[in-house]
Amino acid sequence: MTELSTRTVFFISDGTGITAETLGHSLLAQFPEMRFKQVRVPFVDSIEKARDCAARIREAGRGDGARPIVFNSLVEPELVAGLRNADALFLDLFERFIEPLEMELGQRSTHTVGRFHGIADSLDYKNRIEAINFALAHDDGVSHAELDIADVILVGVSRSGKTPTSLYLAMQFGVKAANYPLIPEDFERNKLPSELHKHRRKLFGLTISAERLSQIRQERRPESVYASLENCHFEIDAAKRLMERERIPWLDSTARSIEEIATKIMQDVHLNKRGY
Amino acid sequence: MTELSTRTVFFISDGTGITAETLGHSLLAQFPEMRFKQVRVPFVDSIEKARDCAARIREAGRGDGARPIVFNSLVEPELVAGLRNADALFLDLFERFIEPLEMELGQRSTHTVGRFHGIADSLDYKNRIEAINFALAHDDGVSHAELDIADVILVGVSRSGKTPTSLYLAMQFGVKAANYPLIPEDFERNKLPSELHKHRRKLFGLTISAERLSQIRQERRPESVYASLENCHFEIDAAKRLMERERIPWLDSTARSIEEIATKIMQDVHLNKRGY
Repeated sequence: MTELSTRTVFFISDGTGITAETLGHSLLAQFPEMRFKQVRVPFVDSIEKARDCAARIREAGRGDGARPIVFNSLVEPELVAGLRNADALFLDLFERFIEPLEMELGQRSTHTVGRFHGIADSLDYKNRIEAINFALAHDDGVSHAELDIADVILVGVSRSGKTPTSLYLAMQFGVKAANYPLIPEDFERNKLPSELHKHRRKLFGLTISAERLSQIRQERRPESVYASLENCHFEIDAAKRLMERERIPWLDSTARSIEEIATKIMQDVHLNKRGY
Repeated sequence: MTELSTRTVFFISDGTGITAETLGHSLLAQFPEMRFKQVRVPFVDSIEKARDCAARIREAGRGDGARPIVFNSLVEPELVAGLRNADALFLDLFERFIEPLEMELGQRSTHTVGRFHGIADSLDYKNRIEAINFALAHDDGVSHAELDIADVILVGVSRSGKTPTSLYLAMQFGVKAANYPLIPEDFERNKLPSELHKHRRKLFGLTISAERLSQIRQERRPESVYASLENCHFEIDAAKRLMERERIPWLDSTARSIEEIATKIMQDVHLNKRGY
């Protein structure tokens, strides 16, 4: 068998390149046997920078002994021409879609792809920043203030994934998510923390396998009762009973990424904050 | 003039739909005059769900009096066929790119687009979660522990954008970012906080216009000296002098989104954590 060669992959954009990179990652993940070296080149907004990119692409091709793959989200014809002055597989993200959209909508596009990220004072953007501040101020039950403006309140045992999920909901969707730990005291009383009772309809639970939870907790507090498998089993079972009794919808976070958990919550709670 | 009609736009995926939505948003932003109603339909992983989607598309088309636009990241032929059983402009995200990639790489793709988000225990994913925990534990200078493992340490006056930027760096790029406020005490001494001195090469500054800063601070502490335009001018000028003296690279966050700020930092600090 021949050794697998490395291909260099470029994500090129006049903005942050995050769109090109997101799509590129999804596509490259389709070829798990390949080795890719990935290079992000953002803010390519002049012909000089486009030509410089072409030079980097040529150099990578010589180094690899195989032509690079380029995910390109530039649209300005002059920049695209400067970039294409290299041997590579060019995959143009926008070119292919803008024309059918223009036809469908009967409108010319503004041809400013990427730049939209710059609208830092759009309403959508402000909502996201506010939601991030909200998530931080309402992490781990630290504040009961303003729970009435929360879009969702996550509950679950310590280390079940509430904090990263709250932050992702804020950052990606502009959703205000508070989160509240369920602690042994709650299980003894077999009741929700009293502050949460009146917001019961906003609650969403996260659970996790005892094995995974114990593993995560061991990393933080090795050899503690807190991290022991037995205690994790106890807390998770008690939390599930409590959530079932209170009819709180819940999700197992064990084998899910925060993107998946957040998207599921959006779907289940019928949240749709992006109103364009 | 006729009134602008609304078009319904669907983002359809067998995973979270975040890739479809990211690309779709960039493209729709090209048509700022249009009004779009956006609908995310994630986890379409059965023929029943695909057919149900088609029904929703038909219904939206009837409601709008114009056919919907569908950003589709399904690849399984049976699901795609079920979906296409509706009148719409279908923009297939993957179909167009997978074939040229297969040709170029001389390999068949696994045809499991979207599913890769599920690899919640990949190394990349673990790095991101660790980085989020790091950012939270090192927000606003609360901890000096482990600054030696930070990839970057953001500095700047209070409310210059350090916290959301740190979180975004963690979430999107898996970069461990601490952040440290520059406070009047530092300006009086005209020195960096002593804990930061030995990590000087990891520092990156954020600044902001005094007008914008005052506006942001007014929302939190109206009518305070802290939020006054005069005090904001003073703090920002002092912070800039300090950063220049210490040769800390810095960036103005005023008109930039957190995505742009984070991408600039990645570029300037030559961070590239994603090694595929």
